[in-house]
Amino acid sequence: MALDAEKEAEIETLRASTATTRRATVPALEELLYKPLPVLDQGFVRVIDYMGDDAAIVQAARVSYGKGTKQVSNDRGLINYLIRHRHTSPFEMCEIKLHVKLPIFVARQWIRHRTANVNEYSARYSVLDREFYVPDQEFVRLQKVERKAATQQASLFGEAAPAAPQVTAAQSTTNKQGREELLERDAAAQVLRDINGISNRSFTTYEKLLGDEERPGIARELARMVLPLNAYTQWYWKVDLHNLLHFLALRADSHAQYEIRAYADVLMDVLQRWVPLTAAAFEEYRLGASTLSARAIEVLRRRLKGEAVSRQDSGLSAGEWRELEAVFPELGGL
Amino acid sequence: MALDAEKEAEIETLRASTATTRRATVPALEELLYKPLPVLDQGFVRVIDYMGDDAAIVQAARVSYGKGTKQVSNDRGLINYLIRHRHTSPFEMCEIKLHVKLPIFVARQWIRHRTANVNEYSARYSVLDREFYVPDQEFVRLQKVERKAATQQASLFGEAAPAAPQVTAAQSTTNKQGREELLERDAAAQVLRDINGISNRSFTTYEKLLGDEERPGIARELARMVLPLNAYTQWYWKVDLHNLLHFLALRADSHAQYEIRAYADVLMDVLQRWVPLTAAAFEEYRLGASTLSARAIEVLRRRLKGEAVSRQDSGLSAGEWRELEAVFPELGGL
Amino acid sequence: MALDAEKEAEIETLRASTATTRRATVPALEELLYKPLPVLDQGFVRVIDYMGDDAAIVQAARVSYGKGTKQVSNDRGLINYLIRHRHTSPFEMCEIKLHVKLPIFVARQWIRHRTANVNEYSARYSVLDREFYVPDQEFVRLQKVERKAATQQASLFGEAAPAAPQVTAAQSTTNKQGREELLERDAAAQVLRDINGISNRSFTTYEKLLGDEERPGIARELARMVLPLNAYTQWYWKVDLHNLLHFLALRADSHAQYEIRAYADVLMDVLQRWVPLTAAAFEEYRLGASTLSARAIEVLRRRLKGEAVSRQDSGLSAGEWRELEAVFPELGGL
Amino acid sequence: MALDAEKEAEIETLRASTATTRRATVPALEELLYKPLPVLDQGFVRVIDYMGDDAAIVQAARVSYGKGTKQVSNDRGLINYLIRHRHTSPFEMCEIKLHVKLPIFVARQWIRHRTANVNEYSARYSVLDREFYVPDQEFVRLQKVERKAATQQASLFGEAAPAAPQVTAAQSTTNKQGREELLERDAAAQVLRDINGISNRSFTTYEKLLGDEERPGIARELARMVLPLNAYTQWYWKVDLHNLLHFLALRADSHAQYEIRAYADVLMDVLQRWVPLTAAAFEEYRLGASTLSARAIEVLRRRLKGEAVSRQDSGLSAGEWRELEAVFPELGGL
Repeated sequence: MALDAEKEAEIETLRASTATTRRATVPALEELLYKPLPVLDQGFVRVIDYMGDDAAIVQAARVSYGKGTKQVSNDRGLINYLIRHRHTSPFEMCEIKLHVKLPIFVARQWIRHRTANVNEYSARYSVLDREFYVPDQEFVRLQKVERKAATQQASLFGEAAPAAPQVTAAQSTTNKQGREELLERDAAAQVLRDINGISNRSFTTYEKLLGDEERPGIARELARMVLPLNAYTQWYWKVDLHNLLHFLALRADSHAQYEIRAYADVLMDVLQRWVPLTAAAFEEYRLGASTLSARAIEVLRRRLKGEAVSRQDSGLSAGEWRELEAVFPELGGL
Repeated sequence: MALDAEKEAEIETLRASTATTRRATVPALEELLYKPLPVLDQGFVRVIDYMGDDAAIVQAARVSYGKGTKQVSNDRGLINYLIRHRHTSPFEMCEIKLHVKLPIFVARQWIRHRTANVNEYSARYSVLDREFYVPDQEFVRLQKVERKAATQQASLFGEAAPAAPQVTAAQSTTNKQGREELLERDAAAQVLRDINGISNRSFTTYEKLLGDEERPGIARELARMVLPLNAYTQWYWKVDLHNLLHFLALRADSHAQYEIRAYADVLMDVLQRWVPLTAAAFEEYRLGASTLSARAIEVLRRRLKGEAVSRQDSGLSAGEWRELEAVFPELGGL
Repeated sequence: MALDAEKEAEIETLRASTATTRRATVPALEELLYKPLPVLDQGFVRVIDYMGDDAAIVQAARVSYGKGTKQVSNDRGLINYLIRHRHTSPFEMCEIKLHVKLPIFVARQWIRHRTANVNEYSARYSVLDREFYVPDQEFVRLQKVERKAATQQASLFGEAAPAAPQVTAAQSTTNKQGREELLERDAAAQVLRDINGISNRSFTTYEKLLGDEERPGIARELARMVLPLNAYTQWYWKVDLHNLLHFLALRADSHAQYEIRAYADVLMDVLQRWVPLTAAAFEEYRLGASTLSARAIEVLRRRLKGEAVSRQDSGLSAGEWRELEAVFPELGGL
Repeated sequence: MALDAEKEAEIETLRASTATTRRATVPALEELLYKPLPVLDQGFVRVIDYMGDDAAIVQAARVSYGKGTKQVSNDRGLINYLIRHRHTSPFEMCEIKLHVKLPIFVARQWIRHRTANVNEYSARYSVLDREFYVPDQEFVRLQKVERKAATQQASLFGEAAPAAPQVTAAQSTTNKQGREELLERDAAAQVLRDINGISNRSFTTYEKLLGDEERPGIARELARMVLPLNAYTQWYWKVDLHNLLHFLALRADSHAQYEIRAYADVLMDVLQRWVPLTAAAFEEYRLGASTLSARAIEVLRRRLKGEAVSRQDSGLSAGEWRELEAVFPELGGL
């Protein structure tokens, strides 16, 4: 990810100009304002603006005239309480605005989060640069395993896999022989050559279709149809803190596709700088938490009483039992 | 809750006229279409229309050309999977439309669920009938306890209670002396007389402000300002199944205020008729489920290994420990 | 609207503390940050925070690395273009957060705008102060006229008036005898006494129901049901600029109820300080604009060609013709 | 657009099974339920389900116990009134669910309408068929003109074109020499060969990356990144009538890209079958309507008074003047 000199200069100009404000301000986040934070091979996240901080959440929760509570320890207690009990509206009172450069297939997943504001760079009116995502070779070597797992899962439902984001990885993590099934280094290199080759050829056709001073072309909005899904696009994305947490709960998760997770991971860092109390509560009560079904609770209660419980008499499906064991490895022990 | 003859007749006309359709149809729900289902003293819920059924969820999840899967057992398995893994979009593919009559203070809680369509009877243009909610005497007797609990909770945050729906009841359930603190029967009767008295007086002033053929009055939109919050209003409310489940998860909960819970309870019955597989999954994986924080999981794991764990060395707050014990009474046992 | 000394002090503390920021900053808006701007007899609007400015809209529209365009005149041109062609997403990139104190019946209209974030002061957990709205006497004198107009409109639809916000005023503005039908000064004074009397009595019952140290009471969440709709509530309300403009287009309009318009008028001033280019475009292309139907366009075209056009051969309904004449008084002239 | 025999059979099974319902039913729409309505070369729209009809809008607007009004003429009057005065909530009370097959670049525009429910066929778990969109040759010949116009527009803003959907076509309609600048028939044929060639090659690489029984491949979610934007995808899309009208106002417009307009045109036909009164009102008061700015109104008023008005003394920009003349060709006449 390297920007040309003109863009670098524009960013430096923005970073250099400061103002005095009465608004809630977060120095740790100011530090990286406007800077491109690299993601994948050519993508980035830039924090453009933000509204509010941890204290603003407390202030809104209490509909107060001044700041939140008098002490940080009180703020922490209330934020923990709010996260724990899923009182979402105070978190909606903070907002962040990002400039993101990302492959189109990632953008297609990302935009499914509808409770956000988006302004995308338009390939109807502008020409896209020859920039596309090519995965890392080591990462590609791990892919075969995942594919097998996906196929396996599909059979659960008789025909095709459900339109379900978490299926693949959920399986692959339980696939003990994963390591042995790595793609050969040569095969992985070939994959990269294939991706590179077809992506370049697609861009070449795109440029040809656009025409030039010598040769007439077709409209940009039409020519773009030959671009590949790994072409990079850009957008401004603005979201409130509650919906950002929801995005992160789904996308910073091990079941998310690697490429969008890479963006979510960078956003986790941004979160920690911006609202450290909320970030800590989020990790304790959401990311690190687990939801147990009525039957799973029953299983644990029986085990706590000292009873032996088997999968068969638990009422849980094989998948549920596996997920429960992943959280409580002690379960099988009795 | 009694409707006048004209309205009864309108409803009967609607119920009597049927048509042939190719759409997904649910006989158990058709049975009660348009009928007012009584709630509180004068309120109701009427199911006006619905779209989809359990099979339609599967059909959408699979983006299929025909129905869902071939067998109900497959539909059940997929629906359980979708609810369990919080794949919400297939549930958004079903929709229900209700006509609800409810006290204004309940309407004010209800409307906080923004992801729904609402058309409310307008007191700007129409005159409201003299109808207001008066609680049941036995119910009023239980109230004092809750108030004490709320005050107690408030002190956690130093000054005022947080804008937090679940506080009161969460506390009151742990208040062991509850029973002894019932309001005297006489005091409760006085409460009802007070509510009745002021509500009637407010409606009388409202009617006076409106004027009549003899005496000029002021605009309806202005006169309504003296109406009490227990006056009944009405609306059409349309929501998709995913957002209905979210509404029910919050409002069919013991922490919700009694009056809105009364509506949620009726809607739970509607849910069971409409989408029985989804209703069952919802009870297993949401209503009957519990979310454990990272530290709570640690506590349980230590106990499963046979270690003694006290509140003090658990890292949990008093409130968290109490909530964990409510789910796992065996916890304290060691 | 007078705040107690403690709140004044909290506000002063907030206003006194400033920080340095790299974010887009608007000095004209900073000036009134946190200050209560009075509305009605006891209400207010306080600007708590904001994100973005006119340049940020351009910056988002262009998905740019630096600021918007190089020159203000270019920014103005683009903003006019965006408003004119209803490109809404760039305006969603600015956000404002307000603390509002308002009568409950106004809050009930306001919350119908669902695309915003709200945190309301909770009468479930807190006791409301004895504060209620009483209109101005001169304003009350004008009310009778409006009511007549509303009744008249209702008959258009055979039975009751539609649930339609603009009906009343639309009519009243065309009601030429309005002036003569003012409420007598004495009658208006009586109206105020009635509103004051019943509101005070409702609060007295409310306080009685709550109980005190001597006498047991009922839960706050239950006691509040006797409060009148003119009681003041408070909330934090956060909205993006696009949705704020939509709110203003509906509520700063002459058809809106006077009380919510009073808030909209204050927000128009805030808008002009915050994003002056957008505010100007909004007045030119939305507030001052008019949408003509296909048939209304036909009428104007015929008149431009010099033809005489009567209501009868225009194809317009009486209401449409009246609205067209209101915009083009010259129409009838031929 | 041809479906295989299995899918045809599934659809026939659905169409053959009917039920009795008390719900509002629209025979004209029932007729085409589940049938694929062809769009572009391989796409389709299938109506899967619907809720409500014209009468249901009236019923909701009046929060009534029975049907809407007694007579169709009253329903028509109220629906016209509601559309004209932008009372949107009654239209939100109807809902439609579609199964759509569409090129990915169209899906990317479509999904910008956030107020809808979507379930897309997942290329993370399923393999996409070799189906991609290739435009019609005559259509391609018209493209060059549009591109030139876009470039021209861009210069208005100094650097790049704004992210503005309507720019291109707005310009091209005023470009009088359009006809002469058609692409040569040979050049157009070459464009099609290029699109076909690269699309096929992309799918071949995709299939290679997936591997087969002999050769290991990579995960589907990763392999899909080489697919072109003209590959066909599918989704279930559910939307309420108000938001469908908003979609159609933007996408059935001459400024929309041809390919999404093709879908909007089919949906206009669906609309007319489903809610004929609403469809007529929509054409009269939205599609055929025009919004005039404050200054444009001033221009017309002056002309109606017989004054001469030139672009220069109108206060309108060149673009605004051109747009006003497009609606009122008589304007220049004086």
